[in-house]
Amino acid sequence: MIVILKNDADKQKVEILAQWLQNQQVEIHKSVGEYTTVWGLVGDTSRIDTDLIEGLEIVEGVRRISEPYKQANRKFHPDDTVIDLGGGVKIGGGNFQFFAGPCSVEGEEQIIGIAESVKASGANVLRGGAFKPRTSPYAFQGMREDGLKLLLEAKKITGMPIVTEIMDASHIDLFEDVDVIQVGARNMQNFELLKELGKTDKPIFLKRGLSATIQELLMSAEYIMANGNNKVILCERGIRTFETATRNTLDLSAVPILKEKSHLPVVVDPSHASGIARLVKPMAYAAAACGADGIMIEVHNDPAKALCDGPQALTPEQFAEVTKGVEKIISAVKE
Amino acid sequence: MIVILKNDADKQKVEILAQWLQNQQVEIHKSVGEYTTVWGLVGDTSRIDTDLIEGLEIVEGVRRISEPYKQANRKFHPDDTVIDLGGGVKIGGGNFQFFAGPCSVEGEEQIIGIAESVKASGANVLRGGAFKPRTSPYAFQGMREDGLKLLLEAKKITGMPIVTEIMDASHIDLFEDVDVIQVGARNMQNFELLKELGKTDKPIFLKRGLSATIQELLMSAEYIMANGNNKVILCERGIRTFETATRNTLDLSAVPILKEKSHLPVVVDPSHASGIARLVKPMAYAAAACGADGIMIEVHNDPAKALCDGPQALTPEQFAEVTKGVEKIISAVKE
Amino acid sequence: MIVILKNDADKQKVEILAQWLQNQQVEIHKSVGEYTTVWGLVGDTSRIDTDLIEGLEIVEGVRRISEPYKQANRKFHPDDTVIDLGGGVKIGGGNFQFFAGPCSVEGEEQIIGIAESVKASGANVLRGGAFKPRTSPYAFQGMREDGLKLLLEAKKITGMPIVTEIMDASHIDLFEDVDVIQVGARNMQNFELLKELGKTDKPIFLKRGLSATIQELLMSAEYIMANGNNKVILCERGIRTFETATRNTLDLSAVPILKEKSHLPVVVDPSHASGIARLVKPMAYAAAACGADGIMIEVHNDPAKALCDGPQALTPEQFAEVTKGVEKIISAVKE
Amino acid sequence: MIVILKNDADKQKVEILAQWLQNQQVEIHKSVGEYTTVWGLVGDTSRIDTDLIEGLEIVEGVRRISEPYKQANRKFHPDDTVIDLGGGVKIGGGNFQFFAGPCSVEGEEQIIGIAESVKASGANVLRGGAFKPRTSPYAFQGMREDGLKLLLEAKKITGMPIVTEIMDASHIDLFEDVDVIQVGARNMQNFELLKELGKTDKPIFLKRGLSATIQELLMSAEYIMANGNNKVILCERGIRTFETATRNTLDLSAVPILKEKSHLPVVVDPSHASGIARLVKPMAYAAAACGADGIMIEVHNDPAKALCDGPQALTPEQFAEVTKGVEKIISAVKE
Repeated sequence: MIVILKNDADKQKVEILAQWLQNQQVEIHKSVGEYTTVWGLVGDTSRIDTDLIEGLEIVEGVRRISEPYKQANRKFHPDDTVIDLGGGVKIGGGNFQFFAGPCSVEGEEQIIGIAESVKASGANVLRGGAFKPRTSPYAFQGMREDGLKLLLEAKKITGMPIVTEIMDASHIDLFEDVDVIQVGARNMQNFELLKELGKTDKPIFLKRGLSATIQELLMSAEYIMANGNNKVILCERGIRTFETATRNTLDLSAVPILKEKSHLPVVVDPSHASGIARLVKPMAYAAAACGADGIMIEVHNDPAKALCDGPQALTPEQFAEVTKGVEKIISAVKE
Repeated sequence: MIVILKNDADKQKVEILAQWLQNQQVEIHKSVGEYTTVWGLVGDTSRIDTDLIEGLEIVEGVRRISEPYKQANRKFHPDDTVIDLGGGVKIGGGNFQFFAGPCSVEGEEQIIGIAESVKASGANVLRGGAFKPRTSPYAFQGMREDGLKLLLEAKKITGMPIVTEIMDASHIDLFEDVDVIQVGARNMQNFELLKELGKTDKPIFLKRGLSATIQELLMSAEYIMANGNNKVILCERGIRTFETATRNTLDLSAVPILKEKSHLPVVVDPSHASGIARLVKPMAYAAAACGADGIMIEVHNDPAKALCDGPQALTPEQFAEVTKGVEKIISAVKE
Repeated sequence: MIVILKNDADKQKVEILAQWLQNQQVEIHKSVGEYTTVWGLVGDTSRIDTDLIEGLEIVEGVRRISEPYKQANRKFHPDDTVIDLGGGVKIGGGNFQFFAGPCSVEGEEQIIGIAESVKASGANVLRGGAFKPRTSPYAFQGMREDGLKLLLEAKKITGMPIVTEIMDASHIDLFEDVDVIQVGARNMQNFELLKELGKTDKPIFLKRGLSATIQELLMSAEYIMANGNNKVILCERGIRTFETATRNTLDLSAVPILKEKSHLPVVVDPSHASGIARLVKPMAYAAAACGADGIMIEVHNDPAKALCDGPQALTPEQFAEVTKGVEKIISAVKE
Repeated sequence: MIVILKNDADKQKVEILAQWLQNQQVEIHKSVGEYTTVWGLVGDTSRIDTDLIEGLEIVEGVRRISEPYKQANRKFHPDDTVIDLGGGVKIGGGNFQFFAGPCSVEGEEQIIGIAESVKASGANVLRGGAFKPRTSPYAFQGMREDGLKLLLEAKKITGMPIVTEIMDASHIDLFEDVDVIQVGARNMQNFELLKELGKTDKPIFLKRGLSATIQELLMSAEYIMANGNNKVILCERGIRTFETATRNTLDLSAVPILKEKSHLPVVVDPSHASGIARLVKPMAYAAAACGADGIMIEVHNDPAKALCDGPQALTPEQFAEVTKGVEKIISAVKE
């Protein structure tokens, strides 16, 4: 970390800062120039909050040389992390996977029907919401425990591993037989939840928050990893911008950046980003073309019941078309 | 709620939508025009997700006539809500309050010293963080339970009610003697936490999320109120934008809008929004001028230890100047 | 257009609005419901500003049924527009083109050298800036007229059509021999310039403004078309968001949306969006995968002079790799 | 300017950068540390684009020590600039002014009527649009030259100086008798226009672009000043964010930041920012409380014709109330 001091910095305050930094166990290498003084901080600077130092009156600027994340950092772990999602289904390191299923689990027939059809169309992991984060307290909050049971039933019948969202650390026990635990965008910085998930050995599917920077997503992954669980899958699902033609703006540049900065697998969810079924196919293709390790897509099997499932859901036939196209693109890119 | 159907909407799909809406216990009043068909939905539409309907192929557009929040809505509760924060300190309905104190509780001497000096300078409620949400797992996470004990000690000595942040529903018991429980920006949509706080009888200080719309803030208040707790204080603390001169962009227009749409008290936190101490005074003045019911300000007592407290903190002397200026502005506006 | 009136709307104000609308030559079809009154406006509503009406006290909401753009609208022009960029190089309707060249024209040798090498690597149109919009008045503002001459020289030698940016309507005469005139992001809403370009018969390469919505981009195209020039190429080049890992956030969802709403060709510029050369390849691939009609890429030929050209520029070798990959993806998607 | 080089930077590329910088007439002071090399650049670095350098592979980071604007910079011009707006009406240095009038000039009776009533209510400068930037080519584009004549008529009758918007450099001659020339948000980076306005001796009222940073606004002021015209008034009028409750988000923190970084007067336009008349009063109060030098407000005199004028316009009576309240706040803050 580099700290640039102001020319006219008050000496006493500079001294206080120097002492404080030394208390944080970092060494200071000073370069005093004619016009400015630059300190190079050596040691473990990950616990130092650059915002705090940058805001000090005596400081002109601060620049991290090393990223504040370590375990998620490709520099210290050059090889791609490969994660077993259950049943031998692997993601990362060249393994591409499709996560598909309904937005919400609504009943036995529904979830098993969809599970079977997405499996037939190329999906490798079944998704489905049991606990649903809803903006309104009056909206359907998901089938909760009962939904989890139905997912496990679908898993038993189809053999597909399942991924489903957790909303509170106190529910972890309920997820014992779930293969992959999803952390939703709204809980990306629910740090108490991240810490507890770090103590499990489940793969964690971590969605980027609506206004989270790429670095903040990696820092949330680091929370899980720092607590002992290295199996984190990162998911880009759209950020909040001024544009209203789509529900959120899918930030596909995040894919190559995340792949460069981290060794963790990166999945794209084009369904939630746009909120429009017609955009799922082109954006899934784009995600595959720019290097994603997987795609999560909402699929429903019964158009007559589609309302509860969201306008962004595809039919199994549309999903099958997407899987085929994506595979062609992956081959084209690899060649 | 008004649903505008497309001219060429498939009749079978229209029928499915009509049935689904009737299952939600809403009546449909149809106006069939030459160029378009408009449905007026009558009944409790708060549980209907407009996004889902808007995304349907057969729908041209949806417009809510009634807001999706009821208990937080001024239409159904025209008078300002006045909340007792403890010890007879009231907010709302013309009662303006200053919440002041350090970012983090760091020790007995620190918190009691600051409590005494902010009280002397005009603060009515002591703030201080015991559980700290930090972007990095390696950063200081607060004194946690020990911090709460020190805050209660400061309360006993000064007689000031205290407000401090909760980060997980499982910690609610620890907050038994805390006067006001704060929900931080990152947990504004931690719905499981909001539900549990709705079952307590404590005033809840609810901060707006970094990318939350004004309506989403009110929906989060509604979560607490729908579970039985009407004592919610709304807090504007800056939103995320492209501007980098300030840490966040303080959205002061939110103050008159929240006051118009809701009867709940509205507080502004200018310290966290800008992250710059020099801006706290002018933005506190602006907040008072546009109708806020209170201001939350970070104050530290010992510049030598200020580093841990954040560059946005004021000294007690600076804070005293702000309280005096704010009071003059409140008088000027009221006259 | 649908106007929803408030239940308790003042009758005199409603009457004033009705008269005003009739003065705009639109007919009003009224549907008076029990709870609300809905007006369907029939006629040419494109000149009516929905913001003005939406802000009226008596109005609950406004919704356009027909888009405010006509000539750019696919509804009224279902077939893809194919534009001849010069020398028989066509874009749109299945014709994909690469626009490549340096950020700025710096000298004869430079521009001819790059023109020859990008042509050899698969580019069809030469780009290069003569008039440069620069944030600082002290920065190099481009070679201006001299730069145009050098571009025309490069065109003569290589036979490639050229595209270069215009910054003021008074310069149009200077662009007489330029094949395609570019309007930069900062001038997307320079309406006087758009009107004048509408009176020319040159293809216009219109870049999306940094904070322009997709609809605003189409309205700017409409300005050109309403003045008589139908040859408009739309370009997505990144929007401003809170994310700082990239200079701008490339909004690739805009590609399928623009292709759906309009018949005009859509090009993606991944160089300026990210500002990082390493991201150009994956984002060019993604652009091709989601349906773009062309890609604009910065290329320089001499790394030793690259500084003036921007860190997002590729070498001709890197560019050749991108063109090959993009062509494979286009084939994969078409199959 | 400080350039931090990467540890493993390629020596040849470092040498190229060093030569290039020397060609720009800046001296390099090198501090070679154990872990990093820092260059301090001394000389006129304002022409160096930090983005270009930051993007180089060999560079870890760049930090400007001196701002890229000089003439607009308070460091080199510590005293407030006071500008005579015409007729002895001064702004800046403690002089606060109200700019008021209709959105568009619509006719003689309208503009003279409003001019007289806003003057009676406390306005010092008459605003009114003759050339109107409109998103749609089909919308009313203003009375243009005829509108200018009517404004000059209103000036003659009331004695008030006038401010009105210019949209193209070729129109400057038409503005000969206009007192203050406004540059709208969409033209804030129309650099050719800014250069030409820099050659006039008129006060320029420069509005912040919808997605312009505070630094970019100052750089646009610098364009005008670098061409010889020091009379620039900066105007905050709202930025584009994800929030939809207001048309734009008024960024009032920009006021104290602009006042700190620059000596130029700062005006706030609360009418356009919110697009809602009810918010004009509280936001005008807030603007005065945080240190603005003036406020621009839309006022219309005839509610029956208000439609054309925008829902954000106040009546003269409402405007008179705002001027009184603002004056009380200014006194309260000054005391």
